Amino acid sequence: MVLDPPLAQPLVGRLAVIGIGLIGSSILRAAAARKLAGTLIAYDGDAAVRARAATLGLADLIAATPAEAVAGADIVILCVPVGAMGAVAQAIAPHVAPGAIVSDVGSVKGAVLNALRAHLPEGVHVIPGHPVAGTEYSGPDAGFATLFQNRWSILTPPEGADADAVARLSGLWSAMGANVEIMTPEHHDLVLAITSHVPHLIAYNIVGTAADLENVTQSEVIKYSAGGFRDFTRIAASDPTMWRDVFLNNRAAVIEVLGRFTEDLIALQRAIRWAEGDKLFDLFTRTRAIRRSIIEIGQETAEPDFGRERG
Amino acid sequence: MVLDPPLAQPLVGRLAVIGIGLIGSSILRAAAARKLAGTLIAYDGDAAVRARAATLGLADLIAATPAEAVAGADIVILCVPVGAMGAVAQAIAPHVAPGAIVSDVGSVKGAVLNALRAHLPEGVHVIPGHPVAGTEYSGPDAGFATLFQNRWSILTPPEGADADAVARLSGLWSAMGANVEIMTPEHHDLVLAITSHVPHLIAYNIVGTAADLENVTQSEVIKYSAGGFRDFTRIAASDPTMWRDVFLNNRAAVIEVLGRFTEDLIALQRAIRWAEGDKLFDLFTRTRAIRRSIIEIGQETAEPDFGRERG
Repeated sequence: MVLDPPLAQPLVGRLAVIGIGLIGSSILRAAAARKLAGTLIAYDGDAAVRARAATLGLADLIAATPAEAVAGADIVILCVPVGAMGAVAQAIAPHVAPGAIVSDVGSVKGAVLNALRAHLPEGVHVIPGHPVAGTEYSGPDAGFATLFQNRWSILTPPEGADADAVARLSGLWSAMGANVEIMTPEHHDLVLAITSHVPHLIAYNIVGTAADLENVTQSEVIKYSAGGFRDFTRIAASDPTMWRDVFLNNRAAVIEVLGRFTEDLIALQRAIRWAEGDKLFDLFTRTRAIRRSIIEIGQETAEPDFGRERG
Repeated sequence: MVLDPPLAQPLVGRLAVIGIGLIGSSILRAAAARKLAGTLIAYDGDAAVRARAATLGLADLIAATPAEAVAGADIVILCVPVGAMGAVAQAIAPHVAPGAIVSDVGSVKGAVLNALRAHLPEGVHVIPGHPVAGTEYSGPDAGFATLFQNRWSILTPPEGADADAVARLSGLWSAMGANVEIMTPEHHDLVLAITSHVPHLIAYNIVGTAADLENVTQSEVIKYSAGGFRDFTRIAASDPTMWRDVFLNNRAAVIEVLGRFTEDLIALQRAIRWAEGDKLFDLFTRTRAIRRSIIEIGQETAEPDFGRERG
C-alpha cells in the first residue's frame, strides 16, 4: 500500500511529536512523506532516542527540551506510555500556546483525558486520540509512514470541545491514511478492552503459563510452537511499559471483559469434560464467520498463516 | 522456501493417503514433487473431494473405496479428524497387507493409538504421527508441497514397535522436509496441549466472548480488530470438526493445562485490580524472550506483524 502524494500546502504550521517510538516516529514519517506540516518538531525524554531520531532525519528539529518542542506548535501529539501522560502534560503546560491542540495516541482514553486536563490550561484544546495500529516492535527504527493506512483512528473529544479543533485534528489523521471515528472515552475504553487489551493480556498469560510448566520443557514449547502458540508470542512481545500502563489505567473495563472471558472459558472447559461435542462445534463454526468479516472490510489479510514466509 | 530435488529412486512403493484435506493433500503434493512413492493413492469419504482431487491431479489413483486405496500399500497415512480414526481403521483393516505401516497425522496421539490398535491386525505396523504444521484453511485446495519444510513431525511408536518400520516412516517425513522427533503418546498429548490445543481453545473462546458482548457491537469488534483481536481470529477459523475431536480426545491434558492458564490469568487480574505494576512488567518482559527464541530457531518470522501486507 502506498501513501497519497504530498500536499501542495501543509495542513499544520508546526507539528510537535513528544515521544519518538513506534507510533511517534510513524507520525513523523507519514507527515514528512506527505508534507503535512510546515515544520516537524520531535522530542524524546531519552537522549539516545533523540540522537537516533536525528540520525534518521525524522524531524526538522529535534528539540532538547519539552518546552522547546511545544513552543509555537499548532498541534502537539503525545506519544508516550499512558502512565507518563500526566508528567509530560505538566512539563509542557507553561509552554503550549493558547489555541493549540494537544492530543495523544494512548490506548486508554478516560485516564488520559483526566491526566491532560489536570495540567493543561483552559485555552488549549485537549482532544485525546488513539490510532488502532501498531506492530510488536518498539522504538524510533520500528515506525513506518504507512502504519495508519486504512486503520481507524479514534478521537475522544471531551464534551464542549471546539468543533474546528476536532476537525483540524481529524483532517491530520485522514491525511496520514486513517479513517477517523469519534466516541466517548468510556466507550473507547470498553471497545478496546475486548479488541486489544484483553487479547494482549491472555497472550502474555499463556506465554507465561507455558514457560512455567514443570513437565514440558521450554525447548519443547519453542520447538512445537507452530501448532498455534507462536501466534500469541507476537503480541506478547509488545512493549512492557506501554502495556503495564494500559492495564493499570483501564482497570474497570479490563476486569469486566476478563470476567466474561473467564466465564465463557470455564463453560467451554465443562463442555470438554462432559464431552458435549455439539457445543464445541457450534462455537467453532460461529467464530469462522467473524474472521471472514474482518478480512472483507480490509482489516486482515486473507493469505493463509497471515502470509508468513513458509518453511 | 524450496523443496530438495526429486529422488532418483522412490522411498516407498505404494503410498496411500486417506483423507484429502489440508494435510493429506500437502503430503500428496510433497510426495509427488520429490517422487517419494512409486504409486500415490488417495481416498476421501466425500465424493466431491475425490472429484476435486482428481481435477487437481493429486494422486496417480483416486480410489473409489478405502479397500481399494490400501490394497498393496506399503505405507498408509490416515489424514482424517481424530474422531474418525477408529471407523477408518475398521474399514481398511481387512485390506491392509501384513508388513504395511499404518500411520496418521492427528493432533492427539494416545486416543488414536488405541483406536488404530483396536482394529488393525497384528502383522500391521501401527506408528502414529503428527506433523506440527498447518494453516487456518481446510480442504484439498488448501495444501501445498512445502507445508512440512522445517517443521517438526512427531512419531509416537508404541512400545515394541518395529525399528525398521519406524525408520522407514521417519525417512518419508524427512524427505518431505520435516524434522522428526520420537516421543510417547502421553508426552505428545501434554506438549501439544500447551503449544496447540489450549491456544486454539482460548482463541475460539475470546472470539465467542467478543461476539456475545451486549455493549460493544459486532461491527465495532470487527473494525477495531487490528488492536490485537484479529490475530486470534486466524486460529479460531480452523476446521471445527477437527478441533472438536481434538478436545474430546485429549481431555485430561487440555483440562490440566487450562487449569494452569486460568490460575495464572486470575493472578494477573488480581495484580491489575491491586495496581501491582511490577508483577505485570516482569511477566511482559519475560514473554519477549520466548518469542526471540522461536524466531532464532526458525519457527517464526522476524518480520513485524508476521509480515502481513500493510494497510
